[in-house]
Amino acid sequence: MMRQAATTLTFRTSGAGLLEITGPVADWVVAQGMRDGLLTVFVRHTSASLVIQENADPAVRSDLDAFFRRLVPEDPHLYRHQDEGSDDMPAHIRSALTNVDLQIPLLDGRLVLGTWQGIYLFEHRRAAHRRDVVLHLMGE
Amino acid sequence: MMRQAATTLTFRTSGAGLLEITGPVADWVVAQGMRDGLLTVFVRHTSASLVIQENADPAVRSDLDAFFRRLVPEDPHLYRHQDEGSDDMPAHIRSALTNVDLQIPLLDGRLVLGTWQGIYLFEHRRAAHRRDVVLHLMGE
Amino acid sequence: MMRQAATTLTFRTSGAGLLEITGPVADWVVAQGMRDGLLTVFVRHTSASLVIQENADPAVRSDLDAFFRRLVPEDPHLYRHQDEGSDDMPAHIRSALTNVDLQIPLLDGRLVLGTWQGIYLFEHRRAAHRRDVVLHLMGE
Repeated sequence: MMRQAATTLTFRTSGAGLLEITGPVADWVVAQGMRDGLLTVFVRHTSASLVIQENADPAVRSDLDAFFRRLVPEDPHLYRHQDEGSDDMPAHIRSALTNVDLQIPLLDGRLVLGTWQGIYLFEHRRAAHRRDVVLHLMGE
Repeated sequence: MMRQAATTLTFRTSGAGLLEITGPVADWVVAQGMRDGLLTVFVRHTSASLVIQENADPAVRSDLDAFFRRLVPEDPHLYRHQDEGSDDMPAHIRSALTNVDLQIPLLDGRLVLGTWQGIYLFEHRRAAHRRDVVLHLMGE
Repeated sequence: MMRQAATTLTFRTSGAGLLEITGPVADWVVAQGMRDGLLTVFVRHTSASLVIQENADPAVRSDLDAFFRRLVPEDPHLYRHQDEGSDDMPAHIRSALTNVDLQIPLLDGRLVLGTWQGIYLFEHRRAAHRRDVVLHLMGE
């Protein structure tokens, strides 16, 4: 019989960059005791996002963060929206370029992530933030 | 008992830019009478897309649109595909950089959108268009 | 009664560019005999990704690939991560800018793809690769 489970995990980022959340996400999935299903990961913010990226060499994450800083520079002349600081509008754009939600199938009790795939919360603001990530699992 | 519901909403865009669709999407979801589930929003086009963005300051949407116009310029020298006008290939690329589909969990009768998150249809063509957006809800 | 089905399709890419996979994906979906549901397509790699794009003019795919090569150049001075070749870090970034997963509703026995929408596996490495794509279908 198909069923659902959901929770909200809160992570504390330490400023811009990628924070791996694969462990706590996978632990919660396993604790639901389903064999097959679909996991949705959803971030409830507009200046942080989600990516699945290489989990081996930490340089991949710093290169990725550096690329997005170059692509969407923190230049006040480029944006009208300035109320929340010069790093806010670039954060919204970097969020639009990546993902607010991710879906990962669960098969035989395991998320089907490839060997080198990790789930990352991508903080786009300069300051540390608390970020709510909703997990929703549907299956049996 | 888990069940499904689906519909297609048609929106008329007024040319390039972001059109908020949170209201009609949330209204349809509430009308299905489910407590928990997973909503999928899917746009059936290749020159319009979907984003979840800040819903407070309208400057965020104009800054976002302006960024994508700079990043993917409407320059005929850059693209071989010209048949449908010089704004068509940039529209396909902007679509690939954002999303064709979004997933939002439903918990306790409400979509888990954060306070500042709105759902937007992102028109990438210069002219007004009719755009079909499929909503699919699975839950109970 | 809602149920699930899943499989893994393996595709051989011939180097960087877009490979259409709509046919084999749709064939598998039809073979599951469901009327309504939600299809998830998930690529188990960090240097290949998924996009839904125009399926008519092949120039759209070459223009898209060319855009991503310009946006994320293969320049060793830009990236610290070099271990797996100069095309590896650009591949990770192009993957983050597109999608690891896609969701497409199934209604009345057909995926709701628009007339011009095709599903593409986007290879970001220069060499040919074998790529695993997981399909997961939930519905009835």
